[in-house]
Amino acid sequence: MTMKLFYSPGSVSLACHIALAEVGADYEAVRLDFSKDEQRKPEYLAINPKGRVPALVTERGILTEALAILAYIAQAYPQAKLAPLDDPYAFAQVQAFNAYLATTVHVAHAHRMRGYRWANEEASFADMRGKVAQNMAECFELIGAEYFKGPWVMGDQYTICDPYLFRLAGWLEGDGVEMARFPWLVKHFEAMRARPATRRAHEEQGLPV
Amino acid sequence: MTMKLFYSPGSVSLACHIALAEVGADYEAVRLDFSKDEQRKPEYLAINPKGRVPALVTERGILTEALAILAYIAQAYPQAKLAPLDDPYAFAQVQAFNAYLATTVHVAHAHRMRGYRWANEEASFADMRGKVAQNMAECFELIGAEYFKGPWVMGDQYTICDPYLFRLAGWLEGDGVEMARFPWLVKHFEAMRARPATRRAHEEQGLPV
Repeated sequence: MTMKLFYSPGSVSLACHIALAEVGADYEAVRLDFSKDEQRKPEYLAINPKGRVPALVTERGILTEALAILAYIAQAYPQAKLAPLDDPYAFAQVQAFNAYLATTVHVAHAHRMRGYRWANEEASFADMRGKVAQNMAECFELIGAEYFKGPWVMGDQYTICDPYLFRLAGWLEGDGVEMARFPWLVKHFEAMRARPATRRAHEEQGLPV
Repeated sequence: MTMKLFYSPGSVSLACHIALAEVGADYEAVRLDFSKDEQRKPEYLAINPKGRVPALVTERGILTEALAILAYIAQAYPQAKLAPLDDPYAFAQVQAFNAYLATTVHVAHAHRMRGYRWANEEASFADMRGKVAQNMAECFELIGAEYFKGPWVMGDQYTICDPYLFRLAGWLEGDGVEMARFPWLVKHFEAMRARPATRRAHEEQGLPV
């Protein structure tokens, strides 16, 4: 069965899209238009009741949450070696890196545009927006100092950490942080852009690489 | 080697503590006193540069992020059957459930006491606090309607989703949500409290069960 990946261009679903392309999965990318609130329509809520992307429709059922989908892709396509599957400790390091991106970095970023999730007043949204650049910069400082091994996140082996980091790194400029502050990240970003799977996912989403 | 779990009483580290007790791991629980800011002291930042709990010191190295530690415990102690390890799709469902707890439910809760992470003004913190009960209630509504199978999260088999849900459910009253609104959750909470591993973790943390 051809899997379906529901995505919104520019969202974190790009990381899963790249990973699907990396492993050579049989998939189709299905676009949701957030400007038309398609993620809140009944047809999509039947697929993902959270009204978020990504959602991956497999022959077994539907998976949500980028972190879980990335691990699924790595495990379902072991020959692609996108995670150290036979080593629980090394696999946990991969998951811990991605969990930090999901719970801390992505959440820091979300306070720029989605403050309404956690507050009601315009003044609060403005206050939140004003702190995003600092928070994002601190996150990437920490990643560079403590977790990024290079040339890929986990060292010589490209893993499911790489497309996830790449996607969040792509938000930095919009969040008011110059990527050039982090030379290791610029290098990683360019290496990601050069990969055929990254190009394919961008083309399929109609995004410039 | 005896593993060390760094925890703060009442924090999400309790979920990992319970899981360690469930699998019969050789561990020691090491308390950090957040009221003395021990999580920000150099000795602890050398263990977890994020200054958060939990951190699990293993013979291989240090793991962070509750979601990754829970999956590690399940994988490192397969005989305890805390996750469907041989089925990438079922494992991804477990991880997706825990990822929702980590990225959405825990984050919603954190806006009650830790608004300073994402804003600077007292008025914003108050605004955030005012929305926590609604957000937490919506999260647990969704979990009950869409994801909780019963009697355990994933059905008949107790998994790493259960101590994680239990920990976050324990925050509801403080967040202004009556657990009694969710009878399925009350039942789960009581079943969790009755387990020897849950009692042991509470005793070791000096908490009432």
